[in-house]
Amino acid sequence: MSEIKSKYENFKQKAHIIIYGTNTVAGRLFDLILLGLILLSVVLVMLETVKGFDAKYHAYLVFFEWVITVFFTLEYILRIITIKKPINYVLSFYGIIDLIAILPMYLSFFITGTSVFAVIRALRLLRLFKILNHPQFNNQSTHLKESLIASRGKILIFMYFMLISTIIIGSVMYVVEGEASGFTSIPMGIYWAIVTLTTVGYGDISPVTPLGQFLASFVMIMGYGIIAVPTGIVSAEFAKNKPTVKESETKVCQNCGSHEHYVNAKFCQDCGHEL
Amino acid sequence: MSEIKSKYENFKQKAHIIIYGTNTVAGRLFDLILLGLILLSVVLVMLETVKGFDAKYHAYLVFFEWVITVFFTLEYILRIITIKKPINYVLSFYGIIDLIAILPMYLSFFITGTSVFAVIRALRLLRLFKILNHPQFNNQSTHLKESLIASRGKILIFMYFMLISTIIIGSVMYVVEGEASGFTSIPMGIYWAIVTLTTVGYGDISPVTPLGQFLASFVMIMGYGIIAVPTGIVSAEFAKNKPTVKESETKVCQNCGSHEHYVNAKFCQDCGHEL
Amino acid sequence: MSEIKSKYENFKQKAHIIIYGTNTVAGRLFDLILLGLILLSVVLVMLETVKGFDAKYHAYLVFFEWVITVFFTLEYILRIITIKKPINYVLSFYGIIDLIAILPMYLSFFITGTSVFAVIRALRLLRLFKILNHPQFNNQSTHLKESLIASRGKILIFMYFMLISTIIIGSVMYVVEGEASGFTSIPMGIYWAIVTLTTVGYGDISPVTPLGQFLASFVMIMGYGIIAVPTGIVSAEFAKNKPTVKESETKVCQNCGSHEHYVNAKFCQDCGHEL
Amino acid sequence: MSEIKSKYENFKQKAHIIIYGTNTVAGRLFDLILLGLILLSVVLVMLETVKGFDAKYHAYLVFFEWVITVFFTLEYILRIITIKKPINYVLSFYGIIDLIAILPMYLSFFITGTSVFAVIRALRLLRLFKILNHPQFNNQSTHLKESLIASRGKILIFMYFMLISTIIIGSVMYVVEGEASGFTSIPMGIYWAIVTLTTVGYGDISPVTPLGQFLASFVMIMGYGIIAVPTGIVSAEFAKNKPTVKESETKVCQNCGSHEHYVNAKFCQDCGHEL
Repeated sequence: MSEIKSKYENFKQKAHIIIYGTNTVAGRLFDLILLGLILLSVVLVMLETVKGFDAKYHAYLVFFEWVITVFFTLEYILRIITIKKPINYVLSFYGIIDLIAILPMYLSFFITGTSVFAVIRALRLLRLFKILNHPQFNNQSTHLKESLIASRGKILIFMYFMLISTIIIGSVMYVVEGEASGFTSIPMGIYWAIVTLTTVGYGDISPVTPLGQFLASFVMIMGYGIIAVPTGIVSAEFAKNKPTVKESETKVCQNCGSHEHYVNAKFCQDCGHEL
Repeated sequence: MSEIKSKYENFKQKAHIIIYGTNTVAGRLFDLILLGLILLSVVLVMLETVKGFDAKYHAYLVFFEWVITVFFTLEYILRIITIKKPINYVLSFYGIIDLIAILPMYLSFFITGTSVFAVIRALRLLRLFKILNHPQFNNQSTHLKESLIASRGKILIFMYFMLISTIIIGSVMYVVEGEASGFTSIPMGIYWAIVTLTTVGYGDISPVTPLGQFLASFVMIMGYGIIAVPTGIVSAEFAKNKPTVKESETKVCQNCGSHEHYVNAKFCQDCGHEL
Repeated sequence: MSEIKSKYENFKQKAHIIIYGTNTVAGRLFDLILLGLILLSVVLVMLETVKGFDAKYHAYLVFFEWVITVFFTLEYILRIITIKKPINYVLSFYGIIDLIAILPMYLSFFITGTSVFAVIRALRLLRLFKILNHPQFNNQSTHLKESLIASRGKILIFMYFMLISTIIIGSVMYVVEGEASGFTSIPMGIYWAIVTLTTVGYGDISPVTPLGQFLASFVMIMGYGIIAVPTGIVSAEFAKNKPTVKESETKVCQNCGSHEHYVNAKFCQDCGHEL
Repeated sequence: MSEIKSKYENFKQKAHIIIYGTNTVAGRLFDLILLGLILLSVVLVMLETVKGFDAKYHAYLVFFEWVITVFFTLEYILRIITIKKPINYVLSFYGIIDLIAILPMYLSFFITGTSVFAVIRALRLLRLFKILNHPQFNNQSTHLKESLIASRGKILIFMYFMLISTIIIGSVMYVVEGEASGFTSIPMGIYWAIVTLTTVGYGDISPVTPLGQFLASFVMIMGYGIIAVPTGIVSAEFAKNKPTVKESETKVCQNCGSHEHYVNAKFCQDCGHEL
């Protein structure tokens, strides 16, 4: 009896290494299969919404969707079984994502599904962000994250400034242009202000009165100019964080401690000592 | 009698600290309530312009608007009473904003208001810019401001160049495209030039003749290329101002407390004391 | 007789200083009046093309245009008289601009003018670029110019790359989308490619087939991504030219020659010597 | 007999220098003629697709196309003959391009050509990228390439993040907006997300529901903000690679000729010799 239990414990341990770890060959293979199935699953959800394709191949799409759902269900159960504190996983961000991504298929037995329902499965995609924590990408994405976090304060102030500006611009344009031009309310004016300031410019609403076009010109130039602000903030941050990152790529002299040698330097540039 | 006066004086002093100060708990709370009411007021103005919503809930909107107007009226009176030189406040930028933001509601008794009138209340929003002077944001926003001020000269020259360019491009396109394509006048051509150069591209006016499209291509590439100029100016300025900001990376003198020394500085630049 | 000649010589000399010079009060005033008249002239040309305005005030517009033309004619004659080698001025870029900007009004006696003809007067605007050579702006605009010239090589290569890319993209989209979507020829496809790559996006032509939209997505992402290239080039150039400019703002120690002190530093950070 | 062979060998050698080399006058001239003919050929392909032009001058276009095809056929044969291992050329990227660019004209005898077929000739354009390897441009384009390669890792992560984001945004907007607004499927939603995130903004599909416009506003601001990321990455990389480029600002060792020392280096990093 205890032998079965020990075998089960053994299986749990191995499964844990494969499912949660990334160091073994099996663990990496598992991650790759998972990645492939997530992508396949998302492609299936997409194709289901393309009317022409769905009409022809609906049966195939449903079949593959079931195969994937069963696999992810097994994975979900295994993740719960093989972890010490299952509640930690179940209530974690990815645990919730995993659950609500497999539910729609099972619920489709009871509720004749709306497309809204099926699309929830696409949330599975969020798991792909996990990959950025892999040691391989970690170095690069850490630098990216650090730079963005460091410039957070300035970017928030910039956003605050943008928000107030769009409300004021939207209100003014609502008054100037009026409903005839599509500026049917202040929120609509704000929507237009954002479309214009960000230089997207759909053209679904655009000023038609001379005064409106004159004001819009200023908004456009403002949008064109202030894109320099977030860009400048982030650029400066990237440039600033540079030395910290490249540290490993410069040689330090053992004799005088001078650093900042090129990686292929053979002698210290300050004392002439061999590196 | 003088007791009442002294009590009044006492009240004035306390009210002054709460209304104008930001150091006491009451002062901060007052600022937060103000912030909330300004946002609420702006949301009310917005919702009034949304036809469907206004039709249903007009009475509620008017009621809340009156509550807010009364509060801001009291605040306006308090600000005048509790300051030493009321004229300074009344004629200041924010004093005028405060006044013209409460007037529309009172004037609505006499004049059956146009929406233009009501929208003026949204100007209240400008007060939110004041927050950027709070010590909490001051550090970040000062750096932003300094960088923008430092690059002012170059940006003005850039704007001047842009202005002349848009007039010339607008005139040429007016001649090339003519009225059939929507280029009904030179100002319209300039409007198009700005829409295009800033890469907004509504598409309300766009060239249709081969020559016009050929010229427009150059304008687009020019717009795409010269966005590098303001971005480059601001980026360089942000990078330049860097040392002042990275407080933690500068050495502080133990003798005189002067900071802003380079990390490799050996002596204080203000008192000559060894660091 | 020689007295009249000497007086004329005297007048020529004075006029030369006023017209060509910028150091005297009269010279600067002359430049300011010129600036104002050029702007007024351009506004007149613009207003003439606005149908509604021109219909009402045509007589006034023509009158003012004649006043300006007479002034610029006098200026043109004076510039020729007061310069030593008139041919140099007449054949210079600005000499030609000056001439062809006054001609349309005189020619309007003989030829009943098309608007094309009148618009030529707007070329006068090009003279405004001259202002950037004024010593006041020279410092800033020189830095701008130098940075752009220094990055010329890289920008040309980038443009070459862009040009070939747009031709290839335009050809592919012509084949994929065909005439039904508005891609009526390869040049039209190239026009679309430029509109898309520069993120202008009028929407006058846009892909409608799934394959076309798929390819267009890549083109958009490419355009969004490669805007980083000119921006990066110019930013790096601005940052690179920085030291040359800021040199004057750092203090150098007289004792040990260490530089990089803040302008308000009082002691050398390397040897402690008073600055 | 062997004389003829030796003459042929001699011709092959000379032809090889002209066709493959860039150091002789003849070689450069050959490159220039090639460049001109490629451009002419591409212009011909373009003009053929312009209906109005093709209708008038079809015979001329075909004639010139044949002249060019014959020239490129000869060039192709010469390239095969004069190289030692012809298979290397034939199977190289440019070898394949050369072949498939001359085939359409010959195949037009047998197959009455669709325009798709003719457009293939425009691929010839890809050969123009070869020019960037010329020593004249090499310096600049190497720096560009190096910077882009160095920032490859961060840009890939950014692209990965963008890809997942667009799929999620596209799915959400498909559910929110539905088919009435043009969001007919998730791939269509993704297409819209890319059009919006890249700030292209055709306006062929744009949200019409208040919730959709609200969400779209976030997407636009996100797109406007994250353009700072690739720009920041590339800018920092350009600035970082700076020393390698500013040849004149680096010290060169008199002993071993090694360059790339920092300006304040005192000893050569390769041989230890005093600088």
